Amino acid sequence: MNDTHNPALRSWVESANDASSDFPIQNLPFGVFSNGGERRCGVAIGDRIVDVSAVADSFTGGAADIARACSAPVLNSVMAESNANLSEFRAQLSSLLSSDSASRTALEKALVPMADATLHLPADVGDYTDFYASIYHATNVGKLFRPDNPLLPNYKHVPIGYHGRASSLIPTGAEIARPSGQTHPSEKDPPKFGPSAGLDYEAEVGFFVGTPNRLGTAIPIDEAANHIFGFCLVNDWSARDIQSWEYQPLGPFLAKNFATTVSPWVVTREAIEPFRVPAFFRPADDPKPLPYLSSEEDEKAGGLDLTIEVFIRTSIMREGGLRPTRISVASFSDMYWTTAQMLAHHASGGCNLRTGDLLASGTVSGPEEGMQGCLLEITRRGANPLQLSSGEERKFLHDGDEIILRGYFERDGCARIGMGECSGRVVAHYSS
Amino acid sequence: MNDTHNPALRSWVESANDASSDFPIQNLPFGVFSNGGERRCGVAIGDRIVDVSAVADSFTGGAADIARACSAPVLNSVMAESNANLSEFRAQLSSLLSSDSASRTALEKALVPMADATLHLPADVGDYTDFYASIYHATNVGKLFRPDNPLLPNYKHVPIGYHGRASSLIPTGAEIARPSGQTHPSEKDPPKFGPSAGLDYEAEVGFFVGTPNRLGTAIPIDEAANHIFGFCLVNDWSARDIQSWEYQPLGPFLAKNFATTVSPWVVTREAIEPFRVPAFFRPADDPKPLPYLSSEEDEKAGGLDLTIEVFIRTSIMREGGLRPTRISVASFSDMYWTTAQMLAHHASGGCNLRTGDLLASGTVSGPEEGMQGCLLEITRRGANPLQLSSGEERKFLHDGDEIILRGYFERDGCARIGMGECSGRVVAHYSS
Repeated sequence: MNDTHNPALRSWVESANDASSDFPIQNLPFGVFSNGGERRCGVAIGDRIVDVSAVADSFTGGAADIARACSAPVLNSVMAESNANLSEFRAQLSSLLSSDSASRTALEKALVPMADATLHLPADVGDYTDFYASIYHATNVGKLFRPDNPLLPNYKHVPIGYHGRASSLIPTGAEIARPSGQTHPSEKDPPKFGPSAGLDYEAEVGFFVGTPNRLGTAIPIDEAANHIFGFCLVNDWSARDIQSWEYQPLGPFLAKNFATTVSPWVVTREAIEPFRVPAFFRPADDPKPLPYLSSEEDEKAGGLDLTIEVFIRTSIMREGGLRPTRISVASFSDMYWTTAQMLAHHASGGCNLRTGDLLASGTVSGPEEGMQGCLLEITRRGANPLQLSSGEERKFLHDGDEIILRGYFERDGCARIGMGECSGRVVAHYSS
Repeated sequence: MNDTHNPALRSWVESANDASSDFPIQNLPFGVFSNGGERRCGVAIGDRIVDVSAVADSFTGGAADIARACSAPVLNSVMAESNANLSEFRAQLSSLLSSDSASRTALEKALVPMADATLHLPADVGDYTDFYASIYHATNVGKLFRPDNPLLPNYKHVPIGYHGRASSLIPTGAEIARPSGQTHPSEKDPPKFGPSAGLDYEAEVGFFVGTPNRLGTAIPIDEAANHIFGFCLVNDWSARDIQSWEYQPLGPFLAKNFATTVSPWVVTREAIEPFRVPAFFRPADDPKPLPYLSSEEDEKAGGLDLTIEVFIRTSIMREGGLRPTRISVASFSDMYWTTAQMLAHHASGGCNLRTGDLLASGTVSGPEEGMQGCLLEITRRGANPLQLSSGEERKFLHDGDEIILRGYFERDGCARIGMGECSGRVVAHYSS
């Protein structure tokens, strides 16, 4: 059996061997695509998609079950498969796609050019939950909303999260209609209703639940990582002016539920294994996480060496053929809480997580300038506008602005694997 | 065509003519049941369930489409039907069940005794949203959590709501396992993890979305009532000690997501028409709702003459054969926001509501003692324990306590129609 992570592995799909490809043979992320016909599940390799169910007879044993499950229009059935089967599938697909494969002819017929395909939401998401796991983001935002009290007393004890809206999860590339809502810009005047003047993005990492838990049953922290099927990027579009007026006492509601963009490729739990790093290093005077959030293994390897980049492309850049401006670069290893801690916390009171449920990390921000994952932080709520390479400036997003998130796992001695793009463009209204 | 609301109408199903029945011929609520076989949709009449799809050929036109859709294991397809078809179905079923019906023999074969049936969740709920629409509840709770600042400045402008958890919606009768969670009972000590010592219920009214709206499209306040398929009861079980520690800044999360009980019978939009009353009377110094929340029709008839009762049955009552103690009685007409306002607000930023989505009102509390819809309010967070008829007292719920919600629409000149029971019993752990 191949070591599917071996950086020396190459594929007969030549584009996968390009060092700049997000999808080398070491990655093999799952997604949902269509090209004229029905939606079905595929795996990305270079600039191609393997139409897996079309070559299901190339797989054996548990891997063949997964290949057949790829005929579905969402990944939920694949996500529900055992980790043993998923591992077997990965090993067989890696072998089928590797340079020395004898099955090239069979598989070549099932390759779809990604450029010809439409990419869809990866899963039927029963519930979507959003966390707040970056202490830098929480502190920066807290300073703006509560200058006297930026980081609340619970932050270092509780992985703060809240339920988001599943119905308005949309795939990468879908337009974002600027929401209208109630705001209260001046204490002197009554509240008003109209288009948000504080539209923002939030760069986040999402993770899908694979193995579910029953209602009333917690997931121990040591098992939590094995309940995660894989990872994606999430843009949690936010209307800051609506948010600041509505959020007390029950949290954000209409400020967030008008659209949340999800990237199409789900990078699997196994693919990211080589990029595990220690969890956030807690200073000595920070509280130690309670036992249900604490394990030696998670402390040692619960972090991820994952870089998140945010780009903006304004209408002027698009029309002028200018490259998008990179706004920020942050590392997911700077998150205060690990994905295992978020998941274990979520289930700790008995809440049942279903296969296909999406959890997101909250905005990924780092400790320094240039590492902040939303405009609210970057511009200090508009006080310090962001200067763009086009000569424009931004307090918040304008109609026509496109936000592009990119993510990649990188580490010495490993093949770099990417997450693809999570993009969306703001429009005044949906066109149709 | 019959006037389906006519209080003089009687059914050949004798139990439906009993004045104490929740399900007279004027009600005809939809639900999902099974009796040994597959789940399917039915309509309650007296102490019987009409197995509608079994007699689909008794219906004609659009009503027959609905009768056939009742073969599904959830009501979503029925809920997606046009109001015209639903109205036609109601009229035909009323006629088939009325004393002078010629179709008694055909329908009798399709009657299932409710006592022999298992009742299930009525719908596949994509998203569950919980509001906070009782100003009395908001003020009472605000006093406990924020004595200086009980009613926040946004309350009279914004129908405050938040996203709840869809996965842990459970049917009436299902046990409630006491959740564990993180609490911080004393400022002097560090937070701890363990079973909640502040388990509470919240008596709420739920309403299901029938006609959906597209992402990016608001629902005008004048059309909002027509997007509601029907009404049920909801018990939003809450762990107050977990809630007070976790809820800032993003709202309740684990304090609420361990279980939410939904009553089985959905009383339709049309059935409740005779019980429409004026919306909450806003004192002159209260702000007028913004135009997107304001309509003459809603002001005139957006309230509902719906009474909610809460009963408790402790283990001692159960073992001693004592009747449950009634804890509170409240009127839904005391809610500050109407169901149309909640729905219009929800969609006002473009959030798409899907058929089968469940919205709940938040705790229904009235202005006086005896009208508070949760123990937090009744006992002032445990400071004034509730005295029960059994001689026991309660600050919060004990294991073995059963909470039973009942609701009924009542008005002079109308047949009283009920919502059935919404019940659940607290246990330390799920048994299986």
